[in-house]
Amino acid sequence: MRHIVLAAAIALSACASAPAAPEGPAPSVADILAQASADEWRALDPENLLVMELPRGQVVIELAPEFAPQHAVNLRALAREGYFDGAAVVRAQDNFVAQWSRTEESPREIRTGRATLAPEFTRPRAGVAFAPLPDGDVYARESGFAGGFPAARDTREIWLAHCYGMVGAGRDVASDSGGGTELYAVTGHAPRQLDRNITLVGRVVQGIELLSSLPRGTGALGFYETPGERTPIARVRVGADLESPPRLQALRTESASFARLTEARRNRRDEWYKVPAGAIELCNVPLPVRAAP
Amino acid sequence: MRHIVLAAAIALSACASAPAAPEGPAPSVADILAQASADEWRALDPENLLVMELPRGQVVIELAPEFAPQHAVNLRALAREGYFDGAAVVRAQDNFVAQWSRTEESPREIRTGRATLAPEFTRPRAGVAFAPLPDGDVYARESGFAGGFPAARDTREIWLAHCYGMVGAGRDVASDSGGGTELYAVTGHAPRQLDRNITLVGRVVQGIELLSSLPRGTGALGFYETPGERTPIARVRVGADLESPPRLQALRTESASFARLTEARRNRRDEWYKVPAGAIELCNVPLPVRAAP
Repeated sequence: MRHIVLAAAIALSACASAPAAPEGPAPSVADILAQASADEWRALDPENLLVMELPRGQVVIELAPEFAPQHAVNLRALAREGYFDGAAVVRAQDNFVAQWSRTEESPREIRTGRATLAPEFTRPRAGVAFAPLPDGDVYARESGFAGGFPAARDTREIWLAHCYGMVGAGRDVASDSGGGTELYAVTGHAPRQLDRNITLVGRVVQGIELLSSLPRGTGALGFYETPGERTPIARVRVGADLESPPRLQALRTESASFARLTEARRNRRDEWYKVPAGAIELCNVPLPVRAAP
Repeated sequence: MRHIVLAAAIALSACASAPAAPEGPAPSVADILAQASADEWRALDPENLLVMELPRGQVVIELAPEFAPQHAVNLRALAREGYFDGAAVVRAQDNFVAQWSRTEESPREIRTGRATLAPEFTRPRAGVAFAPLPDGDVYARESGFAGGFPAARDTREIWLAHCYGMVGAGRDVASDSGGGTELYAVTGHAPRQLDRNITLVGRVVQGIELLSSLPRGTGALGFYETPGERTPIARVRVGADLESPPRLQALRTESASFARLTEARRNRRDEWYKVPAGAIELCNVPLPVRAAP
C-alpha cells in the first residue's frame, strides 16, 4: 500500500537521515549537522540548566543570563531550595502556553529566592553578539540570534523573542510582579506580541513535547479546572547539582554551519519542494541541540 | 496565595470576558465579538464541513473550495463512501503536524473518490476577495484573509497559508501524488515554507486541541512506531449528511468587526501590556468561530 509522507518534514528532524538532494547545491540539515566541526558546538553549562521531572520524563531548560541575569540567579536559588518540588503544570492553553507553579493545595514558602524581581524585558544592545537574519521581521527592526537564543533588536535595545519553546516568567499587571515562581513555555505559534512585555528566562532544549502534548485545560485561559487534571512536578534541579548533569551541546548560532543551515531552510533544494520559500522567519529556524558525543 | 496569571492571554480566548481597558480606545476581543452584528457572522455551510470522530471528541474541518475545488469534491466523495472510517492518526510530530490516513493493518479500496489529483497549490488572484494585513509578511508580497482563511498573494496568484490549524493533503515527491487520502493539520509554529508546495484543503474550526495534544510519535518524522499508539478515527462524515449538522458561524474576515479585532490585536491597550506590538503577523490573527446563537 502506498504511504504518502510529507517528505518536507524530513529536514525538520535534525536526527533523521535525509536523502541527499539529487542535484541541488544545498545539503540537507542532517548533512550540515553531520559536517559541523566540534568547535561549532557549544557545551551547555550545567549551571545554566534547569531540569524538571515530570511523570513522563525530563524537561531541560537553558537559562539566558545574558538577557535575564537576575531571573537566572533567582531561578537557581528557587530550584536549589526545592521550591518547585511538588509544584504542578496548572495550565495548558492550546496554541499558546503551558504554565507551572505551586498550587493552593500545595503551597510552599520561599526561603532563599525572591517572589518578585524588577523586569528584564529588554537590555541595551551594546555588547551582545547578534547574528541577524536577512528577511525582515513583522515585529521588530531586526531579528536573529544571540548566544543561541532567538532575539530581536532596535537601534538601542535587544530582547529575547517568543518563539516556540521559549520560557518566561508569568507576571500580574505590574511589570515587577513576576520573578520566576510561575513559569510558562510557548507551545504554539509564536506569540510575539509578548516580546518586551514579560521576562523571557530561557528556552526548553529537551522535552518540550512533554509540555506541548498535555491535555488542554478547559477553564478560562486553559487552566485546569480540577487539581487531578494537573501534571505533577516531582522536582526541578539545577543541572550542575545532579549526580549526572545533562551533557548537551547546541550548534553555535554564530557558526558557519548555522549560517549554512539557515540558508538550507530559506531555500529548500530537495526534490520535494517545487517553490523554495526564498526567506525564513525567526521562529522557523531550528536551533539544534544534541547529546555530547 | 497569589496566583500570577498571564493576563495577556485573556485576549487570546474569544470566550473569556476580558476586563475593559481603563482608558484605551480599543475594546477587548470579547467586547468586539459581543458587539458584532448578526450579519458579520457567516454560517458555515455543512456541505463544506468534514466531521471527524476521535475517541475524545469531534474535529470539524471547513473545506476551502474557492482554493482547492477538486480536493473539496474528492474529500466529500471519500467521506461519503466511508473511506476514512477505521483510519487513524498515524503521525504527530512536535511543533509541526498531526497526520491521518488508512493504515497497512486496515487498508480500504477507494470506490467513488480518487487516489490522486492535480495539485491546487495556488490559483489566480483575480476574483478572490482579499482583506490584506498592513504589516508585511516574511514569506509573501502580501498576506491577509480570503473567505475566512489566511492567505497570501503576489501580483498574479493567491494561495492559502500554513497557519496553525490549517489542513492539507499529504503528497509524495510528485506534485500530483496527493489528493486527500492522507491529510495533515498544522499543530505548531506556522511552517510557511510549505505554502505553494502542497494543497491546503481547509482548516480545523473546532477540536484542533484533540490533534495538537496527542502524544508525539517517536519514529522518524513523528510517525508512531506501533499500531497501538495511533488514535483511531471512527468515521469522517460530510456535515450536511449528519442527523444534526454542525451549526457554526465564523466572523467574516471582510467585516468591520474583524478589522477592529485585528487592530485590537496589533495594539493591545489593556493595562497588562506595556509596549503594544504595533504590528501583527498573519498567523497570529484569531479567526473566531462560534456555535450559531
